[in-house]
Amino acid sequence: MPRELVFVGLGLYNEKDLSLRALETIRKANTVFAELYTSLMPAFHISKLEKLSKKNIILVSRRDLEEEAGQKILDSAKNGITVLLVPGDPLIATTHVDLRIRAEKQGIKTRIIHGASIISAVIGLSGLQNYKYGRSVTVPFTDESSTVETPYRVIKENKRLGLHTLCFLDIKAEEKRYMTIRHGLKALLSMEKTKRKRVVTLGTLAVGVARAGSDNSTVKADYVAGLMNYDFGPPPHSLVFPGRLHFVEAEALVTLAEAPESVKEMVK
Amino acid sequence: MPRELVFVGLGLYNEKDLSLRALETIRKANTVFAELYTSLMPAFHISKLEKLSKKNIILVSRRDLEEEAGQKILDSAKNGITVLLVPGDPLIATTHVDLRIRAEKQGIKTRIIHGASIISAVIGLSGLQNYKYGRSVTVPFTDESSTVETPYRVIKENKRLGLHTLCFLDIKAEEKRYMTIRHGLKALLSMEKTKRKRVVTLGTLAVGVARAGSDNSTVKADYVAGLMNYDFGPPPHSLVFPGRLHFVEAEALVTLAEAPESVKEMVK
Repeated sequence: MPRELVFVGLGLYNEKDLSLRALETIRKANTVFAELYTSLMPAFHISKLEKLSKKNIILVSRRDLEEEAGQKILDSAKNGITVLLVPGDPLIATTHVDLRIRAEKQGIKTRIIHGASIISAVIGLSGLQNYKYGRSVTVPFTDESSTVETPYRVIKENKRLGLHTLCFLDIKAEEKRYMTIRHGLKALLSMEKTKRKRVVTLGTLAVGVARAGSDNSTVKADYVAGLMNYDFGPPPHSLVFPGRLHFVEAEALVTLAEAPESVKEMVK
Repeated sequence: MPRELVFVGLGLYNEKDLSLRALETIRKANTVFAELYTSLMPAFHISKLEKLSKKNIILVSRRDLEEEAGQKILDSAKNGITVLLVPGDPLIATTHVDLRIRAEKQGIKTRIIHGASIISAVIGLSGLQNYKYGRSVTVPFTDESSTVETPYRVIKENKRLGLHTLCFLDIKAEEKRYMTIRHGLKALLSMEKTKRKRVVTLGTLAVGVARAGSDNSTVKADYVAGLMNYDFGPPPHSLVFPGRLHFVEAEALVTLAEAPESVKEMVK
């Protein structure tokens, strides 16, 4: 019997993001698992995919994957074709890379079926040029022990190099908490009060992207003060901080993301 | 009659990369165009997609999109639902952003159906962590007037920051020329001879990725000397130059990309 572990990307929004190859792979699998905690797919329902694929799908938790090291998935893959469904494009999250390494070390063949990713989706929706994005970063929910110092520093370093920053906003799926653009901006503004490097102020240009990949995605560029009061609707949300703008990029922000016309004066 | 221009991502390899949403959108469209010159999809055939979607598909050239500014696509979108099929995830290429801006300025609604992208595919296949990739860059085919100075500089800057670099390799689809990993490395080594900053030497670690998204993708990590003689098979090819390695990343390169064990000694 063929034995392997296939990581299949679910894409961004609902079960229609699946590629024909992904659906075919699910239908041929002996066992199908899904994890839905690393990203929020707003309109994805396991029951709909079960109907579409005519397969039973087993939901796995963060605990299954991280504390128990995905052992039930690995055990399944030793006995037949096993699929792990993952939001977005698989193996972007470290958890999945860990699992893949463990599988290969146990002699299980692995392969990837790619799906649409939040990375390229936000880059495409922003209208800003791909090769001008620096490293990306996540703005985390903070408590006493953690701060948003890393995203603040990454935005600063990218800006110094003239580069754009893609900021993922934290999610705590178990608690159904998904960081909003307003929350992310507030956290960065409060870091600005401490650091005072003029990286994220009320006058800083940013681009908010909500529900990338859905039929009602929202993309809005404005100064932070404006974005704080803009209604982006339900999550997931992401943020982009532009670096130096090329004139086509400024044009894109104005035409495709309703940026104020004054953005065109920022072109260098 | 509904009028709009929908940019639809084709994904990476063949017609099975299409999402269910993409296929549904193509079937409902009044007119369907496709451009296939911005990336190579090794096993994609318009005729197969025409059969699958029961639609006639019109191939557009670089000339149609760049010199004639996509006017026939825009004219079509003024008269009904028009789809432009694009390899990968749409609007990563500047050409498509230009077309989208022109469309919106002419009062045509636009929207995007995302597809799997070479960006997240190579990041996932490399096993290296997404948030440690710096800006990406293309290694161009060179002639008397152009050099690979930019990619050399970008790799150098990213390395200085400890970051990985994703290098796209140039394609000239009209001439059916697709840069191989060996060709890209040779160009960078010859730039090394001029610059002498020890950015890309025979002893530099790199990761070659061939045919990402296909059933026979190849991922191989090795020092440049080894990669120069490795048979990656047919294009498309991409390259990654790792920055500072985390131990899980080194483990991933050894286990998933057959890197020499000595890579584990590079962990800092």
